[in-house]
Amino acid sequence: MRKRSCKPVIAVTMGDPCGVGPEILAQALGSPDVYEYCSPFVIGDPLALCRAMDLVENRLPVRQVESIPSTKALAEPGIVHLLSPTLLTNSDIVFGKPSADACRASIEYIETAVRFAVEGKVAGICTCPIHKANLHRHGFAFPGHTEFLKALTHADNVVMMLAGTRLRVALATIHNALSAVPTLLTAEALRTTIRITADALMSDFGLKSPRLAVAGLNPHAGEGGRFGNEEQELIRPVIEEFIADPCEVSGPYPPDTIFYRAYKKEFDGVVAMYHDQGLGPLKLVHFHDAVNITLGLPIIRTSVDHGTAYDLAGKGVAQPDSLKAALRMAASMSWSRAAVRTRSKASRR
Amino acid sequence: MRKRSCKPVIAVTMGDPCGVGPEILAQALGSPDVYEYCSPFVIGDPLALCRAMDLVENRLPVRQVESIPSTKALAEPGIVHLLSPTLLTNSDIVFGKPSADACRASIEYIETAVRFAVEGKVAGICTCPIHKANLHRHGFAFPGHTEFLKALTHADNVVMMLAGTRLRVALATIHNALSAVPTLLTAEALRTTIRITADALMSDFGLKSPRLAVAGLNPHAGEGGRFGNEEQELIRPVIEEFIADPCEVSGPYPPDTIFYRAYKKEFDGVVAMYHDQGLGPLKLVHFHDAVNITLGLPIIRTSVDHGTAYDLAGKGVAQPDSLKAALRMAASMSWSRAAVRTRSKASRR
Repeated sequence: MRKRSCKPVIAVTMGDPCGVGPEILAQALGSPDVYEYCSPFVIGDPLALCRAMDLVENRLPVRQVESIPSTKALAEPGIVHLLSPTLLTNSDIVFGKPSADACRASIEYIETAVRFAVEGKVAGICTCPIHKANLHRHGFAFPGHTEFLKALTHADNVVMMLAGTRLRVALATIHNALSAVPTLLTAEALRTTIRITADALMSDFGLKSPRLAVAGLNPHAGEGGRFGNEEQELIRPVIEEFIADPCEVSGPYPPDTIFYRAYKKEFDGVVAMYHDQGLGPLKLVHFHDAVNITLGLPIIRTSVDHGTAYDLAGKGVAQPDSLKAALRMAASMSWSRAAVRTRSKASRR
Repeated sequence: MRKRSCKPVIAVTMGDPCGVGPEILAQALGSPDVYEYCSPFVIGDPLALCRAMDLVENRLPVRQVESIPSTKALAEPGIVHLLSPTLLTNSDIVFGKPSADACRASIEYIETAVRFAVEGKVAGICTCPIHKANLHRHGFAFPGHTEFLKALTHADNVVMMLAGTRLRVALATIHNALSAVPTLLTAEALRTTIRITADALMSDFGLKSPRLAVAGLNPHAGEGGRFGNEEQELIRPVIEEFIADPCEVSGPYPPDTIFYRAYKKEFDGVVAMYHDQGLGPLKLVHFHDAVNITLGLPIIRTSVDHGTAYDLAGKGVAQPDSLKAALRMAASMSWSRAAVRTRSKASRR
């Protein structure tokens, strides 16, 4: 990735202040390479951040702000800019022990970051983990981050992509029992997944003619109908709709070799039919540095690919690799979108 | 692997003489390292083998035999020992063009090799690819190699394992439509798969206290019932039956991270619930050198992990890596079984 003089500002939400969010943030903010590609702007709690900085022995000066500082101020090296929509007390923040107030605060961080992104005040948002079950206990009405972001930004459809340097995998169905997958996999769902993923490969990943591979649902992609008909009746017809698309959509391919082929650079992305078809291979290659990306939103959103890890929180052992990769990915997506806009303006002249 | 003075004799079947079998065989037989760990004994057609040797420019002397030679004769370096239960003519063998006689011959190779193995005249068998659809056209009544071997050896149950140096994956269900998997996955099927795989890790892979990980069926292993109940109702109870087993059976684990953990040596083997859950990750790591092993047979059987590849046959481009790995695996399994027998005899004294 090239270094740029004007780095994109990425709003980073702390996630649950009682999870590993503060400490991975404290570590990432202490990594000089992060500032080479973006200016992070933290939305979270000052107490949690300072205690995490002590924990990982990386004490950086923190400047608390009430609104977003100038790009120039944010680019100032060695200073952490932090905005806190709500202030927690010491008793709210016991690492590893979720609290109601901390839980609610984590929602406000997201709302604040999304507002800045929608208003164009930041180039994108990057989120640390929240804890779904706790949030639900305190009245949070969304299954997770993704659905909440969809509602906040009034997006029609979103796609979950997990990506690393070698593999990009988008999922046509996500958190469902395996037995429900064949029913949930409709032509409409698949069409939307392919469309959003193809668009993202062009705009967010800067590929002019990306090659997007679509997996089959069944072993050997059904082997001509011997092990299921979904390939012939559903997947192939949807792929054929993309015949004239600038994105080269192909498949359905046998699911057990498609990821190796993508790993060897035959494809720029893979649409998997269900969670473990895609994420088993993805996590084998990118266990530590996978980035969770929500495609289809009007804003750029990346996330770490792990949870609050309450059992590890406060021990200073959680690794910041996924957060650093997520920050880098958000910055890279922002540059790609800018380049596409520039090309598109130039072609209109 | 240690070199041994007395190498196990492995019967290698040529598979379909019109596929890539003869040429991968011609290449493997020309690799000196193969003879360091086993004495291969070929069951196939002389004409197909000689033409393949010409093709890959590896002309070795072939000694045709009518019964199995002595171990000493087989250990003679630089000479290929070949037994042909049936002789084909030039017109039967056009590489890339399946013929009825060649197809039938491929069945006789398997029957002959199995007979030698059951009689204890060879240490194990290693098979090159046959073509199921062609065989069915010519009256072959079995879905594939595995079921045929099961019938020939009167085995009760078999398990398909794919293995490489970093991952060993056994499948609880194999060639089925994804929609059929939840129904086919019964406690009985899972119990049998775990039992046979655990036994194989001890006898065929020489591990005294192997760690066998069992995958869940659903994303996040069901996340406490949120995405399916099979983990709680079926998989966990079966795993608990193995509590006192010398093999440490554990799980059910989230299917998207179990393979990374096995890759990092946390487990010695993984039981996957269905084809692509296991083989997507396996083939990402072992695309070229995976070995297909049939566990549960009274004989040792390994196989290449690819098909007849008619489109490549006769071009001399097919790689012998999987065959060489399969020969090495058969030899290694034979040594492990011998070591276990020796230990067991010693402990009885």
